[in-house]
Order: sequence, then structure tokens, then C-alpha cells
Amino acid sequence: MIKIAIVGYGNLGRGVERSIKQNKDMELVGVFTRRAPETVQTEGANAFTMDQLKHKKNEIDVCILCGGSATDLPTQTPEWTHLFNTIDSFDTHAKIPEHFAKVDQVAKENQTTSIISTGWDPGLFSLNRLYAQSILPVGETNTFWGKGVSQGHSDALRRIDGVTDAVQYTIPNSEVIEKLKAGEQLNLSTRDKHFRECFVVLEEGANAENIQEEIVSMPNYFADYDTEVHFISQAELDQNHKKMPHGGTVLHIGTTHENTKQVIEYNLQLESNPEFTASVLVAYARACVRLAKEKQFGAYTVLDIPPKYLSDRTDEELRKELL
Amino acid sequence: MIKIAIVGYGNLGRGVERSIKQNKDMELVGVFTRRAPETVQTEGANAFTMDQLKHKKNEIDVCILCGGSATDLPTQTPEWTHLFNTIDSFDTHAKIPEHFAKVDQVAKENQTTSIISTGWDPGLFSLNRLYAQSILPVGETNTFWGKGVSQGHSDALRRIDGVTDAVQYTIPNSEVIEKLKAGEQLNLSTRDKHFRECFVVLEEGANAENIQEEIVSMPNYFADYDTEVHFISQAELDQNHKKMPHGGTVLHIGTTHENTKQVIEYNLQLESNPEFTASVLVAYARACVRLAKEKQFGAYTVLDIPPKYLSDRTDEELRKELL
Repeated sequence: MIKIAIVGYGNLGRGVERSIKQNKDMELVGVFTRRAPETVQTEGANAFTMDQLKHKKNEIDVCILCGGSATDLPTQTPEWTHLFNTIDSFDTHAKIPEHFAKVDQVAKENQTTSIISTGWDPGLFSLNRLYAQSILPVGETNTFWGKGVSQGHSDALRRIDGVTDAVQYTIPNSEVIEKLKAGEQLNLSTRDKHFRECFVVLEEGANAENIQEEIVSMPNYFADYDTEVHFISQAELDQNHKKMPHGGTVLHIGTTHENTKQVIEYNLQLESNPEFTASVLVAYARACVRLAKEKQFGAYTVLDIPPKYLSDRTDEELRKELL
Repeated sequence: MIKIAIVGYGNLGRGVERSIKQNKDMELVGVFTRRAPETVQTEGANAFTMDQLKHKKNEIDVCILCGGSATDLPTQTPEWTHLFNTIDSFDTHAKIPEHFAKVDQVAKENQTTSIISTGWDPGLFSLNRLYAQSILPVGETNTFWGKGVSQGHSDALRRIDGVTDAVQYTIPNSEVIEKLKAGEQLNLSTRDKHFRECFVVLEEGANAENIQEEIVSMPNYFADYDTEVHFISQAELDQNHKKMPHGGTVLHIGTTHENTKQVIEYNLQLESNPEFTASVLVAYARACVRLAKEKQFGAYTVLDIPPKYLSDRTDEELRKELL
């Protein structure tokens, strides 16, 4: 049995707890949290303080780090990799090389193994970019996200004065996707690829017109997109917009000899983004433990990992059943 | 530069020649053929007899074996793996374990590396089954093929008395795919998943009605499917049906907690099946040479190969550009 610790227990940590129950070769040692453990409502797992983690070194094969990329993981992953094999979902794309270098050094010095930036983007989408571009080097890759809830954009809406709650959906332009697949050469701007749809609850007395204008002109978040804003009640938001669907498409249009068109498309439709991301982390936790057993210490990403390491089946079973 | 030999020069071999030209880190040593070399029309490559191959051991990093799975590869791959690193596209699914064992033994005894059963199915589709099933172990995978030309079914049509030429298209049932993606539980028979469409040229005086009946009732090939037969002229067949498109979809519908639906879809639309398969072989040729340099001898499949081994970019570049 692979013995797993969950470090940090929000939506992602809860998803990891649920995913571990679907994998017969794994068991959950416990949830480690900065909150008072007795206040954390798990789905059966024992909860401990963060401080207790270091005393359980011999009981844990791998820690799945479920904190956020902004402030938690940049320090937590190097820190816990001193003692444990670790997995994280660090997703600040521009800072991945720096994060990798830090974790790699700690892991090599302490003979541990860490797989960073696991999930679907970065993660499965990165893998598909790599396979597609390696197989069809003459071609172009486009990534589309959604339809799904963007936490960053929803947070940006909630920070506006006069807004009490809000949810933002990123919506890919399916017409553009179809045109690309049909072989059209498009010069795509940011505005062409995605729409943004906002569901916003106002404070009493707030000026809807001004807030609408503030949203659609917000730099970085909305100004470069066609954005639709709907003002709705808190009740409606709670009833219809509190799930966390997401997904997207990696589309690679390559050409072989004489512009012969070859289309590779990878598409995810996720009813729960955190539960799916958690499932990816859990599969790579299995790979992490296997690498560590082979004394392959250091930091890795999904691009390094032999696909079969994600599975609990033997090489013979995989060749027989999947090839 | 990676120095490559093409062994066998039909549609696939020609595709490999074309693909190598798209990869800047590769060069083609030559085409090795059972035909008289001077009768083989390459696209620039030197042609040699099969016999000359063994004298070029020091000039070649990897041989891409482009023979057929029925009679060529079962003997050719073990044979050439005595002397060379090899790649093949052996695709008789049921016989892969046996083929693997044979090649693995030769490769280990002779310190060579071979990657077998490379292409898109087996190959990229196998990879996607593995990733999807490892990440979402509670779920079901369905593979759909087409729309595309099936050589085996076209050959079966051409063997019928009174048929001079024919092409068969395998067509996936897109309605079923959409229903599965929408979460419907379907108990699918062979007939539900694919249609078959035949374009047939008759000998003068042949009885169309009898031949139509013979086709739709042919066991293994057509009896279990809804099959449409069109009788057309040779001119029309030559003009409209001599391309080799293919493709297909690996669709995995998984559920996480409480039947939360998660859909993973991998889809290929290929204008040229042999050129795409060739491109996959060429990318894995790069991986094969890298494994051999690391003295990782023996037989491998796509399921074993770290994704980054397919690329000519450094680990740093891949992390920066693709993650």
C-alpha cells in the first residue's frame, strides 16, 4: 500500500481524499492543516496539525501538497521535500523554472523525489503539447480553456467596491476552434479565442452601470476580452453557480508533406476542476513513490515520467490490455 | 545528427522519408528494399538492397522498420535488432506480448534497443488509455475509429469475385459519442459504434445485387455492422477515394466523488494515415537512440518512454516552453 499524507485541506485536499478512495493500492495517513485539526471536517481522514507531520516520516511514502501557488507552495514544497517525497500542483507558469531548481536542489541533497506542477495545465495539457509538437514539428499549438470557472477572475470581480459575490466563466470560442480544425489560417488575438461571462451580486444601492463599466475595462482581466455581465441575486448565484466545472482543449494542427493536414486534439470536460486535478496528483503520487524506490532522487515534472509509472498494473498487463 | 535507415519502402517508408526532412536533428542514410534498388522511386534518398544493410552498422543509429505486421515485422524486427536499434509499428494487437518477448530477448543479448508497436493505435491511443485510466480509475474507455480508410476491409472487398477495385470507410457513430459525453449509460454493441461504407467497382457483367448481399453478410468484416455499398466507376474511385485519411477518438468517461462526471477525449483527424504514423515512428526513433546511448537495452513500447525523450529540446526548454 502507498501511504499518503494530504498537506493543506481546501477543495483540492478534499479532492485528493476522495480520489485515494478510488485507488485500491493507496491509503491515507491523514490530513495536515494549519487550522485547529478538530475544526476540519474531513470525509473520514484523521486531521493533524502541520507540526505533527515531521514526526510521521516513517509512516508516509509521499506528501501531496494541496496549498496555493501564490504563497504556500513556493515555500512549502522545498520545505517538506527535505523530509518527504512530494507532489505539488504549482501552476504559476512563469515561475516554474525557479521553483523546479529550488525543489531539485533540496531533493537531491536529501535523497527524496518530488514531482512538481502536476495537474491538467500545467500537467496533462503540457504533455499533449509535447507529444503533438514532437510528432508534428511543422505545425501550431493553440490552447483553449473552459467553459469553466476562473478563480482568479472571480476574485477580481469580488474585489470591486459594491460587489458582494461573483463568479466568472471563461468560454472558448468554439467557432474559432472549428475553423482551425478545418485548416483555416487565422491570426488570433486574445479577444478572438475566449469570451468572459460574469455573474455578479451587488450591494444594495450599488450603481450597476458604473460597476459594469469598471468590469469590462479592467486591465489584464477583462479589457482585452468581450465580456458579458449579468447582475443576479445571491440566491441565484448560490443555486446555479457554485459548482467548479472547467476544462479546455489543446489543439495542434500540423502538416506533413505538401500541406497534408493532421489534427491532434486533446479535450477535457470536467464537472469538478479540483476533484480532477486531485486525481492527477494522486496518479503521479504513485509514480513518485516508484521513482523514489528506484533511488531516482530530485525534482521531476510530468514531462519526465514514463507513462506506465502512473498505473498500478504490471508492464505485462499494460501491454496486453492497452496497446 | 541522428542517422536513420528506412527498411521497407511502401507508403509508410515514404512517409518516414518525408518526416525526417521536417526534423533538423536527423539525417537519412538510405532506403533498404527487397526490390531492385534502381526501380525504387524515392524522394531523394539513396536506395540499397536489404543485404547491404548489415554492412552499414557503423553508419546507422536506428532502423525504422516499415514492413507489414502480417508477415514482415514478426521476423524482421527480431532479425535486425541483432545488429541495430529498431522501431516498428507492429499492430496485430493480440500478438504484441509474443512479439515483445522475442524482440526483448534479442535486444538484451545484443545490447540494442527496440521500440515496438509505435504509431497511433497501438501507440498514441494506447498512451491515452493509460493516462485516462490511471487518473480516473472509476470510468470506462471507448475507442472509435474513423472516418477513415481501413486497408483490411478494402482488401476483403477486393477479394470478392466480380470486384475489380474497392475502398472501405470506417465511420464512427458520432451520435453515440455525443451521448456518452453527455453522461448517458449505454450498452454498446459493435453495430452501435461504427458504420461501414463501401465504394466498389464491378467487373463488366457482375451481378451487383449478389455482390451487395455477399458484402453485407461477410462474417467478421461486415455482418456485425450497418454497411452501405455504393457501386461506382473506376474513374470515380480513382478521383475521389485514393487518399488515405483516418483518425479516431479515445473517449474516457470517469467519475469522481458522487458521480461527478469527468470527460477525457483524445481525437485525431488525419489527412494521411501513413504520413502521420511515420511521424510518430520518427519521434520515437529519437527516443530509441537516447535510450541506447544510456545503455537501456531491450524492447520497449510507448508506455515505457519518458515523454521528453521524443523531443529535440532540452529539459530546461521544455519546462519553460510547454509546462
